[in-house]
Amino acid sequence: MDSNFEQRLSALQQKHDELITRKNRPVANGNGVYERHEFPVLTAAHAPLFWRYDLNKNTNPFLQERFGINAVLNGGAIKWNGKYLVMARVEAVNRKSFFAIAESANGIDNFKFWDYPVLIPETNIPDTNIYDIRLVQHEDGYIYGLFCTERRDPSAPEADQSAAVAQCGIVRTRDLVNWERLDDLVTNSAQQRNVVLHPEFVNGQYAFYTRPQDGFIEAGSGGGIALGLAGNMEHAVVTDEVIIDRKIYHTISELKNGLGPAPVKTAEGWLHLAHGVRNTAAGLRYVMYMFMTDLQDITKVIYKPAGYFLAPEGEERIGDVSNVVFNNGWIADEDGTVFIYYASSDTRIHVATSTIDRLVDYVMNAPADGFTSYTTVQTIHTIINKNKAFIPRFKTVTSVNGTH
Amino acid sequence: MDSNFEQRLSALQQKHDELITRKNRPVANGNGVYERHEFPVLTAAHAPLFWRYDLNKNTNPFLQERFGINAVLNGGAIKWNGKYLVMARVEAVNRKSFFAIAESANGIDNFKFWDYPVLIPETNIPDTNIYDIRLVQHEDGYIYGLFCTERRDPSAPEADQSAAVAQCGIVRTRDLVNWERLDDLVTNSAQQRNVVLHPEFVNGQYAFYTRPQDGFIEAGSGGGIALGLAGNMEHAVVTDEVIIDRKIYHTISELKNGLGPAPVKTAEGWLHLAHGVRNTAAGLRYVMYMFMTDLQDITKVIYKPAGYFLAPEGEERIGDVSNVVFNNGWIADEDGTVFIYYASSDTRIHVATSTIDRLVDYVMNAPADGFTSYTTVQTIHTIINKNKAFIPRFKTVTSVNGTH
Repeated sequence: MDSNFEQRLSALQQKHDELITRKNRPVANGNGVYERHEFPVLTAAHAPLFWRYDLNKNTNPFLQERFGINAVLNGGAIKWNGKYLVMARVEAVNRKSFFAIAESANGIDNFKFWDYPVLIPETNIPDTNIYDIRLVQHEDGYIYGLFCTERRDPSAPEADQSAAVAQCGIVRTRDLVNWERLDDLVTNSAQQRNVVLHPEFVNGQYAFYTRPQDGFIEAGSGGGIALGLAGNMEHAVVTDEVIIDRKIYHTISELKNGLGPAPVKTAEGWLHLAHGVRNTAAGLRYVMYMFMTDLQDITKVIYKPAGYFLAPEGEERIGDVSNVVFNNGWIADEDGTVFIYYASSDTRIHVATSTIDRLVDYVMNAPADGFTSYTTVQTIHTIINKNKAFIPRFKTVTSVNGTH
Repeated sequence: MDSNFEQRLSALQQKHDELITRKNRPVANGNGVYERHEFPVLTAAHAPLFWRYDLNKNTNPFLQERFGINAVLNGGAIKWNGKYLVMARVEAVNRKSFFAIAESANGIDNFKFWDYPVLIPETNIPDTNIYDIRLVQHEDGYIYGLFCTERRDPSAPEADQSAAVAQCGIVRTRDLVNWERLDDLVTNSAQQRNVVLHPEFVNGQYAFYTRPQDGFIEAGSGGGIALGLAGNMEHAVVTDEVIIDRKIYHTISELKNGLGPAPVKTAEGWLHLAHGVRNTAAGLRYVMYMFMTDLQDITKVIYKPAGYFLAPEGEERIGDVSNVVFNNGWIADEDGTVFIYYASSDTRIHVATSTIDRLVDYVMNAPADGFTSYTTVQTIHTIINKNKAFIPRFKTVTSVNGTH
């Protein structure tokens, strides 16, 4: 038994070490907008063995996993003291999720969790589950974390154990170690999810990107991504929400949408990354899309490419909740590199890399949506016609299918 | 930047060339009814680079994909001037689909898209999305394309951006290049999808296979695949629809069914390929099935094997809408070979090959459904008992489960 325990532990440790020191590489021949990377950057298996196993052979002679980790997903992100930090949503086998910070020296591999997951303080109403934190370094000097707090719907009958209420929880810190819990955000909407704090003051107020929704899953009459202002963060109340990016029939965000991380300021405008959801015969499909808002009026969308920026591909398609990519954290580095941390199918976190220049080029030059099949074909015909000069055979052959 | 542009373009072109010239092979040891093939015949990556990239390095210095293609699925098919043509549903990143023709010299590989996707003319009410075209060479001399046109439900409240209305759009052509749009089909049903034109006149009228349905997803009281007649194609109106193959409780088409391509005429009857849909805990499951109708009375099903003909397998199981195979195009060649172009999980198109003789043998000799577990076991017992003479051990051992 004893030698078996030691052997097993040694094997587990070696496997874990290999995983968390594995080198990651960009995938070749991408679309020019970003590069995916070969391996996920964080998975359930990245959780330290000492979180999951009792390592005392007297109390755990079979070296059993005592508390398994199910998934690592939807991470907030920030660069801190020269390190790339992902504050991941870690989900245990009991379905509860919590936050844990993992750090890497280069942003693409060797992510290692800090020793302890974060114990987020509660308000007077305990959170049943917390998830999807957005980290924002605000110009007021604090780092804020806005996350979803979910509790059972107190009005639901006893027989219904699924009805839930989602609200925006708020914490702040100056060191990512000590966290102060503030009041949950108050809005006019019955529920809130995907709330993000704008990093700058707007007219001396805090600006919140919200996503008003009627029910727990259905955005319902909530028309899309909204913006609202609040006078303080300690008891933040948003009384007016203005829709800035609404959901639209037969698009990738027909059913609902929501902002990802806080926007990145560029010379041309605020760069936004968001998610869109549509229904299919096999359940919901989550993809990521981008848009840009005006530097003077942040409620004004000035560029929005048609369709998605990134959708599930290969192994990303399958997981606890399949057909999902989701992002709530990115890091814009000093040299212009952008690290986009996205989760796939509620199971693992990947990184895609790009640059501010390339993302701005994408957002400003990828064609906007015409919202019909006809205008879509017209868009492609226009691209083909402009390309004729660069394709030798087009110079001599006139296509009978030419545009009209 | 420049040399990087050229290098990237060259790498992308090489990869694309390899893909579209890849040889395809039948998969060995199939079920004897048809052969699957090793590779899909059409995927999103088959879309020409000059549809997706602006190839001008001055306007696209990063060589970014300007308008991505998401999927290539559900293709109509026809043999034309000695080539095998698939008129695919191509879906762009903006979720809109349109039609584009790809041709191959042998029907199983080297499919190459024509230079321009097809710009289908609109009626007075613009199509939001068009898909799933059925190509039919009618005895009136035209090639007709019947497809689904989808528009937002004008009666839906603004907050509901999902409610849609599906109808049958109609185009015709004599050369597959110039397309004339006719009026949408008028029927008594609130919505129509999977409408197919019979290739011959019936009592001097055009015959439509319809699939009446109450709502956009739910077939509802619409009982299955129907047949109706119309006096002309320019303003086609079907006033009477007769159900010829109804949906049945606890079968592969319990929830809904619909015809695939136009039927193929054989000496024994009209050979039909259709799809059936049932619900599961993970969403809908789409499979393909076959039946045969009478040469004299095309509303009369004379043979229908129990269950499915082809269901998702291996990589076919996964995609944008998983657990789906769907077919709306096949080609019956002069030598009796049949090319069945089926899409998997709304993502890519495959080919299965068979012959008229093998398909007729299947439809006439695969046992009909008894619709219960008991009759299913009886069917298998009957097969076993008939096989006894051909299996040595049965000559001496008496089965304890013998028939009764």
